[in-house]
Amino acid sequence: MGFTSITNLDIHDIARLSKTFELGKFFVVSPVESQKEHARAIVDHWTKGFGSTYNQFRREAFEKVEIIDTLEDCVSYIKNTTGKEPVIIGTAAKKIFNKIIDYSDVCDKMLSAGFPVLVVFGTGWGLHEEAAEKCHYFLEPIEGVLDYNHLSVRSAVTITVDRIVRKLLYKER
Amino acid sequence: MGFTSITNLDIHDIARLSKTFELGKFFVVSPVESQKEHARAIVDHWTKGFGSTYNQFRREAFEKVEIIDTLEDCVSYIKNTTGKEPVIIGTAAKKIFNKIIDYSDVCDKMLSAGFPVLVVFGTGWGLHEEAAEKCHYFLEPIEGVLDYNHLSVRSAVTITVDRIVRKLLYKER
Repeated sequence: MGFTSITNLDIHDIARLSKTFELGKFFVVSPVESQKEHARAIVDHWTKGFGSTYNQFRREAFEKVEIIDTLEDCVSYIKNTTGKEPVIIGTAAKKIFNKIIDYSDVCDKMLSAGFPVLVVFGTGWGLHEEAAEKCHYFLEPIEGVLDYNHLSVRSAVTITVDRIVRKLLYKER
Repeated sequence: MGFTSITNLDIHDIARLSKTFELGKFFVVSPVESQKEHARAIVDHWTKGFGSTYNQFRREAFEKVEIIDTLEDCVSYIKNTTGKEPVIIGTAAKKIFNKIIDYSDVCDKMLSAGFPVLVVFGTGWGLHEEAAEKCHYFLEPIEGVLDYNHLSVRSAVTITVDRIVRKLLYKER
């Protein structure tokens, strides 16, 4: 994930989601040193500090988090740990990009075929242009019932992960 | 929804979700006056105050929010606006209740049959016993891939709404 600004609750919510659905990692990406320090303080509190003995469920969740400088560093991390090049999939609230794929493609053509997948979300105003250029594909946007779709990044991440995992586990449409 | 404590972000995230998926209403339920005042200040800012002209998307989202004292008041509100008694459906992270139903039941037997549905979530330690006693049914818990399922209430609400709406719109399993 790329962040315009990292909030405490983004990290908490998405770490817990990542552990519940056993994602490989949840990368918090920011080149800004103060933001990374802030994120690192939260993660350290729950994995090493007082929080780690106070609440083991939070500790397990926060062990999924890696704080990292750039999208390239995420790719290197995945290559080093899995030995494979990840497919980078961008997200956006509207169809502003080409190369749109759906959740079935992610499961059938990528995950089930053994490729690691890195799904990238931006906070605030969506994905930075530089990050978008590095994406191989883009996920179809989460559509609202009418034409309103202004979900928080936390909600968008939650829905995307649930849809992919359910498709992978239960072969839903 | 029942809240042990109402956070700003709970209201923001779930209001935007409610508007995106065109739910009837998002009820913030608390009998505690200071909590209700806090919630009302947030909602008024975005529907009547500076925020309403500053960001129309937030205004539309916050128009879905009703701040209300008790679960009975939600039921009365729904009866008054729809002329029908709602089915009250509780939620929990574990199967601690009887009368468990799944997402298909909610769609096929209730929503598609014209019954309004009130899905109740608790923050903190789950549903209060008094609220649980008023539920006609309970939704199957959101299961993790292993046995860890410690989602935030924001994530649990998001997943539940997305699953129900997708089933309703696309007849997914």
